[in-house]
Amino acid sequence: MDLNTCAHLLEEMENILILTHARPDGDTLGSAAALCHCLRTMGKNACLYNNPEITEKFLPFVQDYLAPKGFEAKAVVAVDLADQGLFPRGYSGVVDLCIDHHPSNSGYACETLLKATKASCGEIIYEVILALRGNLEKEEADLLYMAVSTDTGCFCYANTRGDTLKTAALLVEAGADNWKINKLMFRTFSRSRLVLEGLIYASLRSYRENRINIAVITKEMMQQAGATENDCDDIASLPGRVEGNQISATVRELDNGESKISLRSIETYNSSEICAQFGGGGHAMAAGCSMACGPTEAAERILQAILEVMG
Amino acid sequence: MDLNTCAHLLEEMENILILTHARPDGDTLGSAAALCHCLRTMGKNACLYNNPEITEKFLPFVQDYLAPKGFEAKAVVAVDLADQGLFPRGYSGVVDLCIDHHPSNSGYACETLLKATKASCGEIIYEVILALRGNLEKEEADLLYMAVSTDTGCFCYANTRGDTLKTAALLVEAGADNWKINKLMFRTFSRSRLVLEGLIYASLRSYRENRINIAVITKEMMQQAGATENDCDDIASLPGRVEGNQISATVRELDNGESKISLRSIETYNSSEICAQFGGGGHAMAAGCSMACGPTEAAERILQAILEVMG
Repeated sequence: MDLNTCAHLLEEMENILILTHARPDGDTLGSAAALCHCLRTMGKNACLYNNPEITEKFLPFVQDYLAPKGFEAKAVVAVDLADQGLFPRGYSGVVDLCIDHHPSNSGYACETLLKATKASCGEIIYEVILALRGNLEKEEADLLYMAVSTDTGCFCYANTRGDTLKTAALLVEAGADNWKINKLMFRTFSRSRLVLEGLIYASLRSYRENRINIAVITKEMMQQAGATENDCDDIASLPGRVEGNQISATVRELDNGESKISLRSIETYNSSEICAQFGGGGHAMAAGCSMACGPTEAAERILQAILEVMG
Repeated sequence: MDLNTCAHLLEEMENILILTHARPDGDTLGSAAALCHCLRTMGKNACLYNNPEITEKFLPFVQDYLAPKGFEAKAVVAVDLADQGLFPRGYSGVVDLCIDHHPSNSGYACETLLKATKASCGEIIYEVILALRGNLEKEEADLLYMAVSTDTGCFCYANTRGDTLKTAALLVEAGADNWKINKLMFRTFSRSRLVLEGLIYASLRSYRENRINIAVITKEMMQQAGATENDCDDIASLPGRVEGNQISATVRELDNGESKISLRSIETYNSSEICAQFGGGGHAMAAGCSMACGPTEAAERILQAILEVMG
């Protein structure tokens, strides 16, 4: 399905419910709210599904768009939602149109606009809004800037392409408050997260001239930081930030007395093969496994396995 | 002076020495090396002044361009260098041409191409190279991407404008390895820096529901982390990253037994006025002062001053 067909389909819809994915991030929420804003300026009745997992950080950006109680949808549009298994909690039903950028999109919707080369769904919504109304309003620019920037780690991740930066440029020129959004998204952290990072770095174990780095996260550290699962986003990447790192491991103490290990490596080594020794697996540069022992012993065991591979 | 005049001037130069500024960063080094590469492809003899302060992180990007012993310059070009006080260590002499983006440029050079609205000098060099040769080579795209991205904190800082992102897009399309450069510049840290951050966050003092955050950095912490001044870049911004922060202070224990305080605040409060109480000063949102006491007492004193203002 192409852009114009998608725009025509949206033009014909009324009472539109827009779905975001489970554990919603900046891309699904920013894309949904921007599309909703555009549809409303066209005189349509449109709302976001009241996804119960929206976190405090994103709520101010989307609350004006959330569906009131008793909203009766005649059409359902999903954005950035690759599979029915990722439906927001409480939703089950037909999806008339899906707009997405995930190559893994399962084709669950009646119609799908899929652009799998895009770094974010926000970039597609940008094109959809231009096709629908011909211009971009400031509110939409803000929301789409949030979508594009969060899905690319502020243009730092490997998915950032020339056209990603080009769209971001156009969003800023359309009035997006990029600095304010950047500060909230990339330079603000919960106190618990910062203290947890502090405890992790202060106890970081480094070997072989920092080529191996192991972070251990005990239940006591979580408690001391007042941290919950919400504070653990991307925590497995932290030990790999050390200059000269080649293989890093993050060892987490679990409630059941076992330990969970996340392994990351440069191309030279195969993380998946190392984890397979302990019944785990994954990808060549990122894999995981579990061990039926406490974190200190688990850290020692994974270190020995890494040393063996490094030779 | 306009772009074309600048290009003509460069075309007439021979044996060109390119100056970077003291404590060189990614912008001055990337700009200088990209310009040097372009001038060499035009058949000219061009080199970078052997700035003795180039750090390990940047050396691989510029080492092919550094002047050999005995290089005799007939023309000197400075990039990203705002004032003679910022000359690289060991250089004193005339500068024939300066290409810069600092509004504070003192006009010390014989000729100056100044574009003070640009976030980075790299964006100007991009235009200069196009004016000189009409195209951009991959090596130059890499170097200029390093320049633009580092001066904007990977497009996160307030100086990032639409045209900054547009130039970045063109650099990526010209072949810049943005992901590799991003990983080196923004996701790699010395082990000492990470351990120091760890010790700072693990001991962070927060008050008034995290509206006030104070970081204390003692000499013992520096020692424990194995950290030097090189590991302290932008360290005063760390306590302000706490969600809900309004005023943050970083207190550093000095060798002479005194303490140095860096204060940061949101617009509502005046950092400069608070620091003035202790004989210091600065800007409304970022100021500093010194106290003739140890860090624990200094942290307590600045906290009391902040509480008084916050009411």
